[in-house]
Amino acid sequence: MNSSLSQSQLLSRQNANQLLDSIEAFLFDCDGVIWKGDKLIDGGKKLVFVTNNSTKSRKQYADKFLSLGISVSEDEIFSSSFAAAMYLQLINFPKHKKVYVIGEQGILEELQLAGFTALGGPVGAVVVGLDQYINYYKLQYGTLCIRENPGCLFIATNRDAVGHMTDLQEWPGAGCMVAAICGSTQKEPIVVGKPSNFLMEFLLKKFDISCSKMCMVGDRLDTDILFGQNAGCRTLLVLSGVTTQSALEDPSNKTQPEYYTSTLSDILDLMT
Amino acid sequence: MNSSLSQSQLLSRQNANQLLDSIEAFLFDCDGVIWKGDKLIDGGKKLVFVTNNSTKSRKQYADKFLSLGISVSEDEIFSSSFAAAMYLQLINFPKHKKVYVIGEQGILEELQLAGFTALGGPVGAVVVGLDQYINYYKLQYGTLCIRENPGCLFIATNRDAVGHMTDLQEWPGAGCMVAAICGSTQKEPIVVGKPSNFLMEFLLKKFDISCSKMCMVGDRLDTDILFGQNAGCRTLLVLSGVTTQSALEDPSNKTQPEYYTSTLSDILDLMT
Repeated sequence: MNSSLSQSQLLSRQNANQLLDSIEAFLFDCDGVIWKGDKLIDGGKKLVFVTNNSTKSRKQYADKFLSLGISVSEDEIFSSSFAAAMYLQLINFPKHKKVYVIGEQGILEELQLAGFTALGGPVGAVVVGLDQYINYYKLQYGTLCIRENPGCLFIATNRDAVGHMTDLQEWPGAGCMVAAICGSTQKEPIVVGKPSNFLMEFLLKKFDISCSKMCMVGDRLDTDILFGQNAGCRTLLVLSGVTTQSALEDPSNKTQPEYYTSTLSDILDLMT
Repeated sequence: MNSSLSQSQLLSRQNANQLLDSIEAFLFDCDGVIWKGDKLIDGGKKLVFVTNNSTKSRKQYADKFLSLGISVSEDEIFSSSFAAAMYLQLINFPKHKKVYVIGEQGILEELQLAGFTALGGPVGAVVVGLDQYINYYKLQYGTLCIRENPGCLFIATNRDAVGHMTDLQEWPGAGCMVAAICGSTQKEPIVVGKPSNFLMEFLLKKFDISCSKMCMVGDRLDTDILFGQNAGCRTLLVLSGVTTQSALEDPSNKTQPEYYTSTLSDILDLMT
C-alpha cells in the first residue's frame, strides 16, 4: 500500500483506529520521534525500533531507553550500526579480514558482537558512519583501503545529511562522512541503514509479520517514510523531528506518508 | 579543435614541431608535471601555470618555483585558491561579509590579497579546498553557514579526488572535503578551479591569446585535459603524474588528449 502519490492525511481519531486495527507492528524511528515523546504506545502491537543512528550499539540504545524509564529488549532494536555487522555476516565476510571503521563506538561494539575485528591487519571492509572525531588521517586510511585493497568493501551505515546532536541546531550526519569517502574514492557505498531494504529484510526474517501489517513511524521523509514505503509498510510521519509541515507540503517534496501527526503522543490520545 | 573523440597521438619530433609552430602559449599544470621535470620549455612561448592545488597562494607557488631554480612571476600562476578569490571579486561579493574557509593557507592568503575577510562575523561564503586539518567542527560550521545563512555561497576550489601529498601514495584531495559538505548540505558547489571555465575565462582576459593558440599540459584527464578541451585549447597529457598509459587507453576513458608523452622533458628533446 504505497501512498506516495496521494496526499498525506492528518491523523484523526477515526483513521488512527482504522490504522491500528489493520496493523500488527509499529516500526519506530528513535531520534526525533521517541526521545521527544514521554509515553509509549501499548495495546498488543509489536514495537520495533529502527534507527539510522550509528554511534550507539543496540545495548547502548536499550540503556538509553531504560534511562527514560522504558524497558526495550535489544532484539527489538535495529540500528544502522547493527545493520553493518549483519551485512558482513550475511555475505560471510571472512573473520580473518579486518574492518576499518570511520564512525563511533556503536559500530565497533556491533562488529565485535558479530565476531568481526576492527582495525589492524589486512582491511577488507571500510564501514563509514557519523564520526564527530573525523579527521584527514581517518579519511586517508579509509580512502587507501577502498582504492588499493582488492575487493575492499565500502559500507555506509546511512546517508542522513544532518542530525540533531543538540536541540538548537542540526549537525552533519553520516551522509557527510560517507560523501567525503565517495569524493576521494569515486565509489558508491553499500548502504545498510534506512532507507535501504537490507535492514527491512533482516527485520522481516526475525519477526513473522507481513509488511502491510506494519506501520513505520518516523520524522524523516527521505529515510523513515521512504524506508517504510519501499517495503510496502503503512507510514506515519511525526512532525516532532527533522520534517516541518511546510516541508511536507512543499511541491518539491515527492514523498508523502500515508498519515502525519505533530507528535507521538497524539497517537496515544487518538487511540484510546 | 576538440580531439576528445579521436585517438591521442604519442608526441613525436614531427608532431611536436607542428604543435609548437601553431601555438603561442603553454598552460601548465604543476603537480605531476612541473615538479617532476627538471627543465622548462623556452623558445618564445608564453608559459602559464594552472594548478588545482588550493593549499598554496600564488606567492607560495612562485617561491616553490624559485626553490627549484625557476623564476616565475605570480602573474603567470593561476591556482584554484586564487580562482576562489577572483570569483568573489567578479560577483562583487560584499567586503563586509565574511568568508569561511575549509582549506589551508593558500586560500586565506589569496582572499586577504583580494580584500576579503575570512572568518568571524556574518559568513556569506564558504570556500572549500583540500584541508589536511579537516575536523567535525569545521564541517559543522561550514554546513550551518550554507544551510542557514540566506544566500550563503558554497564555493569549491576544485574537486580532485586524490593528490600526491607524498610520492608513495595518493591522499584525499579537495574533492573529499567538497563532497563532505555536499553530503551534509545537499547542495552543489560553484567550482572555480579546473576543469571549470571560470579560471580559463579569467586567464583569457589577462592574456591576449586565443584558446586555439594555447596548449594545456597536464597529468589528469578529468581536470587538466578536460579544462583545455572545454575551452578549445590544444592538449598534451604527460604520464609522469596521476594518469597511467593503461588508464589513458582504457575503453571506459572518454577523455582523449590530442597528444601524450611520458614526461615533460620529452617535449624539450623533441623540440630542438
